[in-house]
Amino acid sequence: MTYSAPVDDIVTALKTVADLDSRLANGLYPGLDGETIRAVLDEAGKFAGDVLAPLNWSGDRTGAKWSGGHVTTPAGFRDAYKQFTAGGWSALPCPEEFGGQGLPEIVSVSVCEIWNSANLAFGLCPLLTQGAIHAIETGGSDTLKATYLPKMVSGEWTGTMNLTEPHAGSDLSELKTRAERHADGSYRITGTKIFITCGEHDMADNIIHLVLARLPDAPGGTRGISLFLVPKFLLKDDGSVGARNDVICAGIEHKLGIMASPTCVMKFGENGGATGYLVGEENRGLQNMFVMMNSARLAVGMQGVAIAERATQRAIAFAKERTQGKALGNTVPGMSPIIAHADVRRTLLTMKAMTQASRMICLATAGALDVAALSADEDQARAARNLAALLTPVAKAFSTDIGCEVASLGIQVHGGMGFVEETGAAQYLRDARILPIYEGTNGIQAIDLVMRKLPLEGGAVMKAYLASVSDIASKVQASNRPDFGQMGAKLQKGLMALVAASKWMGGALQSDPEAALAGATPYLRLFGLVAGASYLAKGALAEDASPHAVTTARFFAENCLTAAEGLADTAMHGAAAIAANEGVFA
Amino acid sequence: MTYSAPVDDIVTALKTVADLDSRLANGLYPGLDGETIRAVLDEAGKFAGDVLAPLNWSGDRTGAKWSGGHVTTPAGFRDAYKQFTAGGWSALPCPEEFGGQGLPEIVSVSVCEIWNSANLAFGLCPLLTQGAIHAIETGGSDTLKATYLPKMVSGEWTGTMNLTEPHAGSDLSELKTRAERHADGSYRITGTKIFITCGEHDMADNIIHLVLARLPDAPGGTRGISLFLVPKFLLKDDGSVGARNDVICAGIEHKLGIMASPTCVMKFGENGGATGYLVGEENRGLQNMFVMMNSARLAVGMQGVAIAERATQRAIAFAKERTQGKALGNTVPGMSPIIAHADVRRTLLTMKAMTQASRMICLATAGALDVAALSADEDQARAARNLAALLTPVAKAFSTDIGCEVASLGIQVHGGMGFVEETGAAQYLRDARILPIYEGTNGIQAIDLVMRKLPLEGGAVMKAYLASVSDIASKVQASNRPDFGQMGAKLQKGLMALVAASKWMGGALQSDPEAALAGATPYLRLFGLVAGASYLAKGALAEDASPHAVTTARFFAENCLTAAEGLADTAMHGAAAIAANEGVFA
Repeated sequence: MTYSAPVDDIVTALKTVADLDSRLANGLYPGLDGETIRAVLDEAGKFAGDVLAPLNWSGDRTGAKWSGGHVTTPAGFRDAYKQFTAGGWSALPCPEEFGGQGLPEIVSVSVCEIWNSANLAFGLCPLLTQGAIHAIETGGSDTLKATYLPKMVSGEWTGTMNLTEPHAGSDLSELKTRAERHADGSYRITGTKIFITCGEHDMADNIIHLVLARLPDAPGGTRGISLFLVPKFLLKDDGSVGARNDVICAGIEHKLGIMASPTCVMKFGENGGATGYLVGEENRGLQNMFVMMNSARLAVGMQGVAIAERATQRAIAFAKERTQGKALGNTVPGMSPIIAHADVRRTLLTMKAMTQASRMICLATAGALDVAALSADEDQARAARNLAALLTPVAKAFSTDIGCEVASLGIQVHGGMGFVEETGAAQYLRDARILPIYEGTNGIQAIDLVMRKLPLEGGAVMKAYLASVSDIASKVQASNRPDFGQMGAKLQKGLMALVAASKWMGGALQSDPEAALAGATPYLRLFGLVAGASYLAKGALAEDASPHAVTTARFFAENCLTAAEGLADTAMHGAAAIAANEGVFA
Repeated sequence: MTYSAPVDDIVTALKTVADLDSRLANGLYPGLDGETIRAVLDEAGKFAGDVLAPLNWSGDRTGAKWSGGHVTTPAGFRDAYKQFTAGGWSALPCPEEFGGQGLPEIVSVSVCEIWNSANLAFGLCPLLTQGAIHAIETGGSDTLKATYLPKMVSGEWTGTMNLTEPHAGSDLSELKTRAERHADGSYRITGTKIFITCGEHDMADNIIHLVLARLPDAPGGTRGISLFLVPKFLLKDDGSVGARNDVICAGIEHKLGIMASPTCVMKFGENGGATGYLVGEENRGLQNMFVMMNSARLAVGMQGVAIAERATQRAIAFAKERTQGKALGNTVPGMSPIIAHADVRRTLLTMKAMTQASRMICLATAGALDVAALSADEDQARAARNLAALLTPVAKAFSTDIGCEVASLGIQVHGGMGFVEETGAAQYLRDARILPIYEGTNGIQAIDLVMRKLPLEGGAVMKAYLASVSDIASKVQASNRPDFGQMGAKLQKGLMALVAASKWMGGALQSDPEAALAGATPYLRLFGLVAGASYLAKGALAEDASPHAVTTARFFAENCLTAAEGLADTAMHGAAAIAANEGVFA
C-alpha cells in the first residue's frame, strides 16, 4: 500500500496549535508563508511516497547486514539517501550559515513525521544527524563548526550520538569511556558504546560520532563527562576524507524492528585511542548532549505520530475493502465492508483521533521552540521556552505510547491477516516498540515531567498551561453546539482532573517524593489526554473546521478523555500499594 | 531464563474463584483431592520447565519449515512431543472411556497455562487436539469415536480445526468448501482452508482434521454448514494408518510470532476429493464446531495468562539484577537495582496484578464449566452453565488483551535490551499478538457478551453475577482493614459503573442496538476489570491470604480498577461520535 502524507491534517494542526497564521503575519518567520510551507510538505510527501515508502517493507525483510566491521544497508537505501540529500532535505532545518535552508522547527518536525511515516528505519539517520549538527552548532568551536557542519548539513556525512554503554543506559553517571588529552589539543578516546544508531553504514562518506567520555582527572558522576567529536575518517588538511580513525563497528543488534537501521556496537581506541575533538568545555559534555537529546526527544515523539499515521492509513484502507458479516441495518445481499461495523469504526476512530492528538502535542512543542528561538520579545521567548520544556516529555512519551497502541490496533483491524508479516501491519508494531524506550524511556520522561518540569518557575509554567486549556474548555462550553456533543463537559472534567493531580503532585514533591514518582506515569498519560483533547477541541472551534475535525475532537473527548479522572485517581492514590509491595516479587 | 510454574498462584486462584475446597469436600470431583491437584501442577511445572521452556527461544529462531507439502518442526519439538504424550499429558483432560484421565476443567485449564507459558507454540497443538476430541466426543458416531478418539487421547494423532477460508474469516456463513455424498456413506471434501494451526507437522503419526463444508443441497448461510472428520491418512480395516488422503499442506504463513507452530494453508480434494466422515448431522456442523470453539476460547484466554505470567517472571528477574540510577532514599554507593524505582515497581505490579486477575477470570470460568458438567443439582448446573457462558468472552478477550499489554510492559522494563531479540522479552509480545485475533477476535467476543450473554435468561444471569460481585465488595468494605486501603470503595465504585453500563446496554439492545455494539469493547474491558478486582479481593479476604495477595488486590483496585467509571462513560456515551463519522475516513 502506498503512503499518502496527511498534509491537510498537519497544516490544520499547525494552524491550531502553533498559531501559524498569526505568527506568519507577525513576522516570526521572515521569508516564509503558508503556501511555501504547504509546498514543502507536499514535496516531502511526494518524495516519501515515491522513494522511501516502497523501501520500507523490503528494508525490513532484508535488514542491515554486518560483516567484518562494515554495514550494508538494504537494497535501495543508498540510492534513496543520495536522492534525499540531492533534494536538499538534509539541509532543510539547518543553519543557513553552513549551507542549510534555515526552515523553522514547525516545518522540520512536520517533515520528520513524513519521512518516518514512510520509512522509520530510513528516517532515523537524518534525525540523528540533525541532533548532532545541533550539538556541534551549540557547543563546538568555530573551527569544528566550519570543518564539519557544511558536510553534515549537506548530508554527505552523517552523525551519531554515543551515550549508552552496557552498564550505563539511562544512568550516564556511570559511563566509563575514557578520553586522554593529546599534545596537539585533540584527545584519544577509548571505550565501548552500544545501541549506536547508524554508527556504521554505507550511505555516507564519513560518519561523525559525538561521544560522551571521561577525562582522567574528571570528577565522578555526571559532572565529569565531556563531549567529543570523533570522525570515522580523519580529515586531511584540505578538509577531505583521509585516514581511518581508531573506531570500528564490532557488530549490530538483532532487533524486534527497525531492521534496516543498524544498531551498532562501537569500539573506540582498540589501537591506541580514537582521535576526538572536544565539543564545548571539559566536564560539561552533558549540557551539550542534552541539547541534542531534547531535540531528539521531540523528533522521537513525532516518530510515534508517524507510525500511528501509517498504521491508521493502512487499517482504514483494509477496513474499506475487506468484507465480513453484515452490519446492522444493511439490507443489501452479501457481506458488509468491515468499516460498516460499529466496533471496527470505534477502533479506526481511536487510531485517527489518537494520532491527530499526538501530532498536535508535538507540533505545539515545535511551535513553542520556534517562538523561543525567534521571538524578539524576551518575555514571550522565555514563556515559550518554558512551554516547550513542559511539553517535551509529554510529546515524547505520550506520542510514542500512542504509536505502539495504534500500531497494535492496526493489526487487530486486519484480523488474522494482521499477524501475517506480508500484510505489513505487524512491521509497524515491531518498529514502533523501540520508541517508548530510546531517547529516555517513557518512565524517565514521566519523572522528568513531574520532578523537573512541573516545578519550573515555581509552578507558574504549569499554571499558565492549565489556564490555556481552561480557556479552550470555556469556549467549547460557551459554543453550545449540538455537534460538539459532550465535548465541553468532558474537557472541563478532564481539566479538573489534571488540575487536581498537578496540585497533588506539587504537594507530594515536597512531602513524599516517592509517591510523586510512583504516580508519574499515569500523570503523564493524563496530561497527554487533556492536552490532546484541548488541541483537538481548539481545532474544532476554528471557523473553517472541517466536519471530520469536529467528529474527531468529539470522539476523542467522549471516548479517550473519559480515562482522565481514573488516571488522576491512580496518580494521586496508587502509591501506597506500590510502597507496600514487600513479598510480591519474592 | 528458566520458567517456574506459579503453582501457588494457581492454587490460590482455584480456591478463591472455583471454590476448590468446598467442591472437593462436596464430592463434585470424585477421586480427586487437593494434594493430587497440586502434585499434577507441580509435575506439569517440572516438565514445562525442563523440556518445553528450553525450546521456546530456539523454536522461535528456527521456526517451522515447509517443503513440498511437508512441515518440519524446530529441533527438539518432535522429541518433546513424544515425552509429552508418554507422560500422559495429552490424555489428562480426556474421557476415561477412550483412555483419558478424566481430570476436570480446572486442572486441564491450569495445566494449559503451564504448557503455554513455557512454550506457546508447542502448547497450541495439544490445545487444538483437545478441542477436536471434544467435538468428536460431542457429535461423532460411536464408530467415529471408537476409531479416532483413543489415538487422539493418547496423543499419537493430533487434531485441527478447519474453519477459515480466504474470504470467510469471522463470517462462516460465506464458506465455500464443498462436501459431496459418497455411496459408502462417507463424503468427498473439496476446498481451501487457511490459518490452520498444526494442519501439517512431523510430531504425530496422523492428523485428524475437523472441516466445515457445505453439501450441494445445503441451504445458504450458517444453517447449511456441516462438520467432517478428514484424516491425513486413511485407516486400514485394523484401524492402523493406511493410504494418504487427498489433503495437502500447500504452504505455511510467515508470521509475527508463534514461529514454531505451523499455520497452514490446507488444500482438500485436489485429486478428486478428500474422504471425510460426517460429525453430527448434516447442515448442523456449526453447533458442533461451537463446542470446540467455546472450549478453545477459554484455552486461548489462558494463553493470554500464560504469556503474561512468563513476561512478568522475566521482567521481575531482570529488574532485580539490572542496576541503574539511584532510588530515592538509597544511601548505599553505586546504582540501585531498577526494581527499587517506584515507576518500575508500578510497572511490575501492574503486570503481576493483571496476570493474576486474568487467571482468576479464566479459572472461574473453568470452575463453572465443571459444575455445569458434574453437578447432580440441575438448578446449580444450569446456573453454572450460564455463568460459564457469560464469562467465556471476558476470559478470552480480557485475558488476551492483558497478555499483549503485559508482554509489552515486559519489553519496557528491559529498556533497550528489551528490543534486542536475544533477550527474549520481545518474543512474548510477538507470540501474544495473535491471541486477541484467533478463536474469534476480541471485538467479536465483546459483541457476543453484549448481544448474546447479557440477555441470557432475560438478564437474570448477569443480575446474579452482579450480586456475587456486590457480596464481595460489601465484605471488603465491612472488613475495614487498613491494609486494604481504598479497596472497598474502589470496588463499590467499579461495581456501580458496571451496573450502570449493564443497565444501559439492556436498554440499548432494545432501542438502539448500533449504540450497544459501538460500546461493546469498552464494556467488556470494564467487565474484566470489575471481575478481576472482585476475585482478587475475594482472595485477599481469605483467612490464609498471603500479604502479597493483599497487596496485589489492593494495587489492582487502586491502580487498575480506577479506569472503570471512564470505561462505563465511554460505553454508554461514546456511540454518537462513532455514528457521526462521515468524512473522517474519506
